Amino acid sequence: MRTAFTSDITGAVVDSLEGTADPRLREVLGALVRHLHEFVRETELTMAEWESAIGFLTATGQTCTDTRQEFILLSDVLGVSMLVETLGADRGVTGGTGATESTVLGPFHLTKSPVRELGADIDLVGGGEPCVVSGRVRSADGTPLPGAVLDVWQANAEGYYDVQQPGVQPPGNGRGLFTADAEGRFWFRTCVPSPYPIPTDGPVGDLLRTTGRHPYRPAHIHFIVSAEGHAPVTTHIFVAGGDHLDSDAVFAVKESLVQEFAESDDPSLAREFGVPNPFRHAHFDLVLNAEPS
Amino acid sequence: MRTAFTSDITGAVVDSLEGTADPRLREVLGALVRHLHEFVRETELTMAEWESAIGFLTATGQTCTDTRQEFILLSDVLGVSMLVETLGADRGVTGGTGATESTVLGPFHLTKSPVRELGADIDLVGGGEPCVVSGRVRSADGTPLPGAVLDVWQANAEGYYDVQQPGVQPPGNGRGLFTADAEGRFWFRTCVPSPYPIPTDGPVGDLLRTTGRHPYRPAHIHFIVSAEGHAPVTTHIFVAGGDHLDSDAVFAVKESLVQEFAESDDPSLAREFGVPNPFRHAHFDLVLNAEPS
Repeated sequence: MRTAFTSDITGAVVDSLEGTADPRLREVLGALVRHLHEFVRETELTMAEWESAIGFLTATGQTCTDTRQEFILLSDVLGVSMLVETLGADRGVTGGTGATESTVLGPFHLTKSPVRELGADIDLVGGGEPCVVSGRVRSADGTPLPGAVLDVWQANAEGYYDVQQPGVQPPGNGRGLFTADAEGRFWFRTCVPSPYPIPTDGPVGDLLRTTGRHPYRPAHIHFIVSAEGHAPVTTHIFVAGGDHLDSDAVFAVKESLVQEFAESDDPSLAREFGVPNPFRHAHFDLVLNAEPS
Repeated sequence: MRTAFTSDITGAVVDSLEGTADPRLREVLGALVRHLHEFVRETELTMAEWESAIGFLTATGQTCTDTRQEFILLSDVLGVSMLVETLGADRGVTGGTGATESTVLGPFHLTKSPVRELGADIDLVGGGEPCVVSGRVRSADGTPLPGAVLDVWQANAEGYYDVQQPGVQPPGNGRGLFTADAEGRFWFRTCVPSPYPIPTDGPVGDLLRTTGRHPYRPAHIHFIVSAEGHAPVTTHIFVAGGDHLDSDAVFAVKESLVQEFAESDDPSLAREFGVPNPFRHAHFDLVLNAEPS
């Protein structure tokens, strides 16, 4: 139990958590207290700096709305989101050996993606460079995964998600929920994504400016891929050759996730996808690990 | 510079802070990133737990208003506020050797205390047990500090601050800004403070319930004491013999800050203070360290 007049405040706080019913929560909170206190001790954080931190965290919470998640953004720019995702993948909880590597969810998976047919165009507005994205969902052992579900979302050609531009973009623009065919194949049309800045008009933008960092993310399309009996993977596909691949504002780039969006000059394939020839085409497999049975 | 496709995400994030113009901010943010990442690694924090944390932090920010500061409360119940205050005092930044020990500011120093004359009653409503608080502000070497300023605030007899009960308590109830007399003396009337629970209807209350902790603070009066040429002290005076002195929800009790509110049976002193005899009386010195000249 915590004692009065303690000189070991860290121990007193950790002891005060003894009554936590959930042992995992007790472990996590105890570790949080130890690491937070160690941060304060190491930096000899001053009261004025602590007040700045309180103000920053409060503003971050108050910037959140139904369509904006500034705390996820903060976690992203501090590399915490990517670390949690990567450690999870390393444990085989998501992804794992053989599977497509995972990366951050990001703050814009806020609405349900509309169910779309294979081949549909998720760019409801146009204006970007049209392209086709296709491939196969398979298990790490090569088995195709018919009926795999692909939740796909991306920003428009100007770098904004639908939820950031209500009234400008129709809801569901850049989003689609696809089901792979009987051979695990998927294909859809969209525009080639562009690099874009994360929102900089809130506290996280202030943080980036103060630390001399740019807010850009390299061009990418988000995926959450799931299939029965397999661990789902949250990831992006990045556009090869694009800007900021070496300085992603949220540290989410992994080499295996960079894919060519090459020009395809194949009239019969263009006809098959329903696009004018030639067209930009990204083609890759998405690979899931079987869950332990 | 951060490199692409890094396996050392912590190093990459710390490196990304290289452009921070303020070297102290660069140091503090770098340490924050290292300790946050170490917390995630040690606990192998899962994505679901991270999502809970994001939700908790968001709710904490959104619970803050002009009259409520849930992030300070969170910092308080995790012992962070007390640690920052204590380390600052140990460095002689506030308080220091010889001075009255410091303790947390707490979340209710939100409004300006009204200027009051020495001897005034800060209990504008009545209802509690009346008492007199008096003493002297002096330098650590014993010199009285005439003109020292005492910012005083406390909860009412039911355990609520004025800002928590707009319309019930008049603004400024339980608060006063006093100036010590030519001999450094101060005295004012109030009610004997009661133990009270910190607000439990927000995320911090949820945290206390989940961890099996009670929300009570032992009875206390807040002070910020300042005088020219001296380091100010933020502190409380706790009522000796009261409940929860050994389990303050915010870990703020220090033995030297516990004072008797003893019954005084002294008709001439009662007359001097303008209170009925006998009366409860706390009498103590508040001691400041001279700033290095």
